[in-house]
Amino acid sequence: MANLTLYGYWRSSAAYRVRIALNLKQLDYTSVPVHLVKDGGQQHATSYSSMNASELVPVLVDGELQLNQSLSIIDYLDENYAGPLLTPESGDRRYLVKSLAQDIAIDVHPINNLRVMQYLSKEVNADDNQKLNWTRHWIELGFHALEKKLASASGTYCVGDEISLVDVCLVPQVYNAERFGVDMSAFPIIQRVVEVLRVHPAFVKAAPENQPDADY
Amino acid sequence: MANLTLYGYWRSSAAYRVRIALNLKQLDYTSVPVHLVKDGGQQHATSYSSMNASELVPVLVDGELQLNQSLSIIDYLDENYAGPLLTPESGDRRYLVKSLAQDIAIDVHPINNLRVMQYLSKEVNADDNQKLNWTRHWIELGFHALEKKLASASGTYCVGDEISLVDVCLVPQVYNAERFGVDMSAFPIIQRVVEVLRVHPAFVKAAPENQPDADY
Repeated sequence: MANLTLYGYWRSSAAYRVRIALNLKQLDYTSVPVHLVKDGGQQHATSYSSMNASELVPVLVDGELQLNQSLSIIDYLDENYAGPLLTPESGDRRYLVKSLAQDIAIDVHPINNLRVMQYLSKEVNADDNQKLNWTRHWIELGFHALEKKLASASGTYCVGDEISLVDVCLVPQVYNAERFGVDMSAFPIIQRVVEVLRVHPAFVKAAPENQPDADY
Repeated sequence: MANLTLYGYWRSSAAYRVRIALNLKQLDYTSVPVHLVKDGGQQHATSYSSMNASELVPVLVDGELQLNQSLSIIDYLDENYAGPLLTPESGDRRYLVKSLAQDIAIDVHPINNLRVMQYLSKEVNADDNQKLNWTRHWIELGFHALEKKLASASGTYCVGDEISLVDVCLVPQVYNAERFGVDMSAFPIIQRVVEVLRVHPAFVKAAPENQPDADY
């Protein structure tokens, strides 16, 4: 029986990904909210930074294991727990899934993270409009490339007809895109796939607005 | 017999990582330079973007496979070719290696990429000093966390006494840190590990200044 604890934040894309993976694998877990804004950011408190010196969410605790980085956590769950495989075990498809997921999780998301937006205001004097354009720019750039790649890769989902790590990364990124007013009609394949994913129970349960710490 | 082609750029950290991995596994490859600045950026030319719509380096070609994302490429090499394993096959150490590598490749590097620096000048009016501080800030923040984590993880190398994916990601990041004047004396463990890695033939051969397209 798994005894999993996830330290996360309702609106963090990285925590959102892990919640989706946990739900897809039907794993129960205890959710511990780490508020990224309150108290100057609870991720900077010693109680959290002693688990992850990077002071970023999420962290998954499983017995002795304390693991950060959402993609590593999802690989851990995929390789150590039953349920649908989010990254295929072998073949070219394995690397296609990894690279498309990283196109989102490496090329888009880190540039728009909360701490980057805070630094943009504070140290580069970016105004609200410049920050909004910044966020939209990197999402749109990433989505334009992804849309082209999905033209050949996608079936019902991002890669063929099985839910994969790419879908797990895409839904939180689209949540951000919509939050910041990206015109999603420019990305019909992404829209089509996300419409299907959004009503899947594992994705519904993981959605930011359905977390107990949601305070919008 | 491998027939590998790497599309990269001498000073790209991501391409540098893949070169190190190829050399550690003693794999021969053909190197095709993609100049990220010349001609408005050769990565935007159709000949390249048809292989990777993200218009970022590197891409590895192996027969029918065209793969982007340095971490995916290195996993592919690790799982399909002989030579030292860069990510341990199982155990907690597997996920420690993954998460530490991602602490560099996700949390530090993408925020300082060339296209981000270009956008900072053009759209947020950042001056040279603000851009230099930007680069140093994200590297130093990442290295402070990494230094703490390496206090328990490191041996001769980042994780114990075997070269891993963490080392493969660290050396290119330190190359950038020094290029942008980060005071490395604040990170004695990182410095100690990198001093050993730097004289390793696989790392020497992969160094930016030793690439045929180096034009500094």
